[in-house]
Amino acid sequence: MSKPRINTMEELSVAIGVSRPTLSRFFQDPSRVKKNTAARIEAGLARVEYVPNFFATRMNRKSTGLIGVIIPYLNDLFFTKLLQAVEVAAMQAGMTVITQCSHSDPAIEARAAETFMSMSVDGAIVAPLGDHSDQAVHLRLKSRMPFVLMDSRPKTMPNVDFVGTNHHQSTGLITEYLCRMGEPPVFLAMPRVNFNAREREAAYIARMRELGFEPEVIGTELLHEDWHFEEHGEAVLDIEFGGGRLTDRSILCANDRVAIGAIRAAARHGLTPGRFGKGGLRIAGHDDYPLCPYLNPALTTVAQNTDAIGKKAVSRLLDLIRGDGRDDTPEITLFDGNLKLRESA
Amino acid sequence: MSKPRINTMEELSVAIGVSRPTLSRFFQDPSRVKKNTAARIEAGLARVEYVPNFFATRMNRKSTGLIGVIIPYLNDLFFTKLLQAVEVAAMQAGMTVITQCSHSDPAIEARAAETFMSMSVDGAIVAPLGDHSDQAVHLRLKSRMPFVLMDSRPKTMPNVDFVGTNHHQSTGLITEYLCRMGEPPVFLAMPRVNFNAREREAAYIARMRELGFEPEVIGTELLHEDWHFEEHGEAVLDIEFGGGRLTDRSILCANDRVAIGAIRAAARHGLTPGRFGKGGLRIAGHDDYPLCPYLNPALTTVAQNTDAIGKKAVSRLLDLIRGDGRDDTPEITLFDGNLKLRESA
Repeated sequence: MSKPRINTMEELSVAIGVSRPTLSRFFQDPSRVKKNTAARIEAGLARVEYVPNFFATRMNRKSTGLIGVIIPYLNDLFFTKLLQAVEVAAMQAGMTVITQCSHSDPAIEARAAETFMSMSVDGAIVAPLGDHSDQAVHLRLKSRMPFVLMDSRPKTMPNVDFVGTNHHQSTGLITEYLCRMGEPPVFLAMPRVNFNAREREAAYIARMRELGFEPEVIGTELLHEDWHFEEHGEAVLDIEFGGGRLTDRSILCANDRVAIGAIRAAARHGLTPGRFGKGGLRIAGHDDYPLCPYLNPALTTVAQNTDAIGKKAVSRLLDLIRGDGRDDTPEITLFDGNLKLRESA
Repeated sequence: MSKPRINTMEELSVAIGVSRPTLSRFFQDPSRVKKNTAARIEAGLARVEYVPNFFATRMNRKSTGLIGVIIPYLNDLFFTKLLQAVEVAAMQAGMTVITQCSHSDPAIEARAAETFMSMSVDGAIVAPLGDHSDQAVHLRLKSRMPFVLMDSRPKTMPNVDFVGTNHHQSTGLITEYLCRMGEPPVFLAMPRVNFNAREREAAYIARMRELGFEPEVIGTELLHEDWHFEEHGEAVLDIEFGGGRLTDRSILCANDRVAIGAIRAAARHGLTPGRFGKGGLRIAGHDDYPLCPYLNPALTTVAQNTDAIGKKAVSRLLDLIRGDGRDDTPEITLFDGNLKLRESA
């Protein structure tokens, strides 16, 4: 507490008796000064209160040690789980993550990208907004720094490294499970905020046809382009159940938050999905949202491997930062989903 | 796309024919150069691809335009709502928020504080970890920059600006509501991860005594110090309901995530809180977690005003950054909670 406060490198040089250029080399890379000089600097630093300016010490280095991450939406535990996986992996690699949320607004996403460029982050990982993302922003980031897309893959950017879930496999898996255990499901679509929504819908349709069933997609006419998924699921099924429709069907929801609304609509109409054997109402989701085990009934779903996605996005970005594989064809990594059987289906 | 790429201020000076010191003054503050020079620089910038280095242009300024924010835990929609309120308010003030999550680990919290100091953020807003926070870290931040605590208030730091909820009022309000409408509630405690847990417990006890009832706190013997609140609520009540206890009582949970677990335990024991008039099981929470309306039954709770808390934390920090009220006594702002009456109580 009573250590003298040092504000600049010049003051530090005077206080510990080591020249300014030597200090500068030390802060850029301690191995660039002699061992006993480094020891003297370290002993000196212990005697004073001094925080080296992050950017002053890194301005002439190649690396800032920063990774920029953009997520589209904060109030969604899927994205917080994914972000946590990214942060943990980055921390283990000694990097600091700067997160910006685009709050579903392409202008904010573009501003976040500019912030990353001006901060000279070593690379960026972006979970895009979907159709609303300004593709020029992603191209600009990619032209300026190592860049990996995560979670949702724009069809228009096939040449960018991407890490996400194999929705063909994951949605196919739960479609097949529902068909095997009972009636073929209808698909309750989610608002088309990103490309995953359409990939899952297409995967459902393909798997149903392979199995010889007629696909049936509902909820498309109410698709507001926002992130109020629970509200959407409840509204669509409130109309259906209220009209006496779908009350004994199997309903595959495009994601778990839609399914939370679907289960709520069922409860309001006195229906309990999954509890009454074959022929009754079943509801299933996609993602394995952290609250699935605590719903009533607990939600049957297919889990995305967020840990693996976050870890791989970081390791791929670090490869690109090190210059490995930068000129290769883009690396596309898709992780399989896993069935989580609970009570609702 | 075909604009020439400029990497340094020196290259920019050559490319647009304006001297390096003039450019530097322009980037620090456009009003420091003549109007027609500023116009010439702006026209020149439009012709080239150049991102000024954030820290190079700000190194000699007083302000970086950055606010550092630390939250204790990511996978909790209460904190994401609060963070969103902070980000929106900061954005409106033209500031950029750098968020670090301490992942419930005091060492990570300390590292985040060092990152803020080395980045020369203009100020910091911290939602502390609770007992586990290293108080020295907060004191160090406070000694280096404008600093506001948010959400959870350490008793050991009475002299720091704080913005949060008046838990005496909010918990008192729902305790009084439950007593008025039915049986006096027992209090299901939450893991003691922060000071709010104990403030709410104390507020419950005080209000019960004021109303002439004997307070009864349960769940304290199972208090793991982690953030798995749903699991905790379910485990405590699974034991109680399994033993035939509390099945017709009123249960006030220390927060909504505990209540989500409580409602799940009730469902597993065939109980539906709140549906059967006086004398039956009732469950209530605290916070107004975004999923409350979608639970079955929908959760009665008392809402924290996260928008107001986030907005006030930013405006207070901006006051301190501008030098207003820095030497005054600390400003403590507590917002009242509002009852959200739904189905569960």
